[in-house]
Amino acid sequence: MALNIKPLSDRVVIEPAAAETKTASGIYIPETAKEKPQKGTVVAVGKGNKDHDMTVKVGDEVLYGKYAGTELKLEGKDYLIMREDDILAIV
Amino acid sequence: MALNIKPLSDRVVIEPAAAETKTASGIYIPETAKEKPQKGTVVAVGKGNKDHDMTVKVGDEVLYGKYAGTELKLEGKDYLIMREDDILAIV
Amino acid sequence: MALNIKPLSDRVVIEPAAAETKTASGIYIPETAKEKPQKGTVVAVGKGNKDHDMTVKVGDEVLYGKYAGTELKLEGKDYLIMREDDILAIV
Amino acid sequence: MALNIKPLSDRVVIEPAAAETKTASGIYIPETAKEKPQKGTVVAVGKGNKDHDMTVKVGDEVLYGKYAGTELKLEGKDYLIMREDDILAIV
Amino acid sequence: MALNIKPLSDRVVIEPAAAETKTASGIYIPETAKEKPQKGTVVAVGKGNKDHDMTVKVGDEVLYGKYAGTELKLEGKDYLIMREDDILAIV
Amino acid sequence: MALNIKPLSDRVVIEPAAAETKTASGIYIPETAKEKPQKGTVVAVGKGNKDHDMTVKVGDEVLYGKYAGTELKLEGKDYLIMREDDILAIV
Amino acid sequence: MALNIKPLSDRVVIEPAAAETKTASGIYIPETAKEKPQKGTVVAVGKGNKDHDMTVKVGDEVLYGKYAGTELKLEGKDYLIMREDDILAIV
Repeated sequence: MALNIKPLSDRVVIEPAAAETKTASGIYIPETAKEKPQKGTVVAVGKGNKDHDMTVKVGDEVLYGKYAGTELKLEGKDYLIMREDDILAIV
Repeated sequence: MALNIKPLSDRVVIEPAAAETKTASGIYIPETAKEKPQKGTVVAVGKGNKDHDMTVKVGDEVLYGKYAGTELKLEGKDYLIMREDDILAIV
Repeated sequence: MALNIKPLSDRVVIEPAAAETKTASGIYIPETAKEKPQKGTVVAVGKGNKDHDMTVKVGDEVLYGKYAGTELKLEGKDYLIMREDDILAIV
Repeated sequence: MALNIKPLSDRVVIEPAAAETKTASGIYIPETAKEKPQKGTVVAVGKGNKDHDMTVKVGDEVLYGKYAGTELKLEGKDYLIMREDDILAIV
Repeated sequence: MALNIKPLSDRVVIEPAAAETKTASGIYIPETAKEKPQKGTVVAVGKGNKDHDMTVKVGDEVLYGKYAGTELKLEGKDYLIMREDDILAIV
Repeated sequence: MALNIKPLSDRVVIEPAAAETKTASGIYIPETAKEKPQKGTVVAVGKGNKDHDMTVKVGDEVLYGKYAGTELKLEGKDYLIMREDDILAIV
Repeated sequence: MALNIKPLSDRVVIEPAAAETKTASGIYIPETAKEKPQKGTVVAVGKGNKDHDMTVKVGDEVLYGKYAGTELKLEGKDYLIMREDDILAIV
């Protein structure tokens, strides 16, 4: 189900993964990040801007810096909105 | 009714939503933002500049950072004027 | 009567409005700005530069940030000279 | 009489006006600037650079920021050398 | 065996070398870096961006600044993810 | 006699003038600069770079900021090496 | 003998000269730099990047700022790796 949100410019909305989750490829998030996961799923992607073409797509599992983004509550759930450049990698 | 204000450059005038409002798409603003809402409606849009083409339109409901913009009183009501890049997303 | 001053580059000379003025469009300046008005009339406009084409014209009523510009006394009256980018909007 | 000095790049040499001078157009410099005038006459102009074409000419009377430029003694007189962008306006 | 991770933009994933390792070419890492090695092997490389074409390849042994990058645990092992510009040299 | 030094990029090597020197054009350096003169002769010039074409030539007498450049001893004499943009004017 | 190291981007590896060395052209390094020489020989050069074409070559004797670069031990000897722009001049 798509969220009714259109991030502006080079921004991306991410649904943070629950702590201690293990992905199919066996990637663990570091233990010190349990309270605030650094892994999540992209749920909305902006159109980019003159300086930045977007790389991630909705559904991508991504790693991001511990303090990246702004918290957002959408339909009762917590999300993060951040610039794509704050995303470290697709996993 | 259109406001008699023309924001310069990449600026946008926003009418902040009343706190605790629930939108059609069911988006709540975070409870910690009750005193100063982070959601609002675009009421005026600048023409952009050489580095920035405008994306939002009058009437768009937008989310913006808690400390974004400058307060402005127009015709007895409170508004915010900010650069479009301070807007996080259209909802 | 035009002032005998040519602002350089992207600068604009503004005659600050008297405090508590109400414009034709009913715009009030915020009460906290009574001592130092944030509204004024453009009295001279520079030619812009390579990075900035000018938007405002002499006679435009404009809003500007509370601490924008440098004070200037011309023919016994107080003016402000600021870069056009410090002007928030034309009202 | 031209000074034997060629300012580099976008620099300008200015002869500061004596304090409390009143120009033909009736412009006074602010009283608080008596010790260090903010008005002067351009006596030498650089050739500009890739980012900046020069606007002022030798002989122009200009206003500049109170702390702009570097003091310089040429042939026994005090001058200021500053970047043209520190000049606010031609009066 | 390739890691299931795609670094974004100009980022690179590095497997830090164990401390006190001596390479084929006889390069030692400085003794003061024993706790946190400054040498490692590239295990994943981003696609670069508009401002940066990538130089290193998977398998390259590289030297990097002591405080470069963000720690990451992938499949139970510790890695670093950093921008390629934080890599000093290929050895 | 040319010095055996090639300044890199937009750098210039300057031989500082002895304090209290009076040039042919009658320019004095300010008295407060006696310990560290702000006037000197260009003895070597770099080739410039993508952003900066060189203006000064070997032999030019120049004025420079009091704290500009790095001190250098060449063949027993003191010189300064600085970026050309730290030179204020040719005198 | 060439070192087995390829500096990335606009970086250069330098072998610092022993303190108090006098070059063929008679250049002394300043006495205050005895502990940490500011003169050295280029032993490896990067390929440059989009903003910077390389000027120095392996074998060039160069002067560099006292605090430039990162120390590196290669094959038991101390080197410095720095950006070419930290090199002041070829001597």
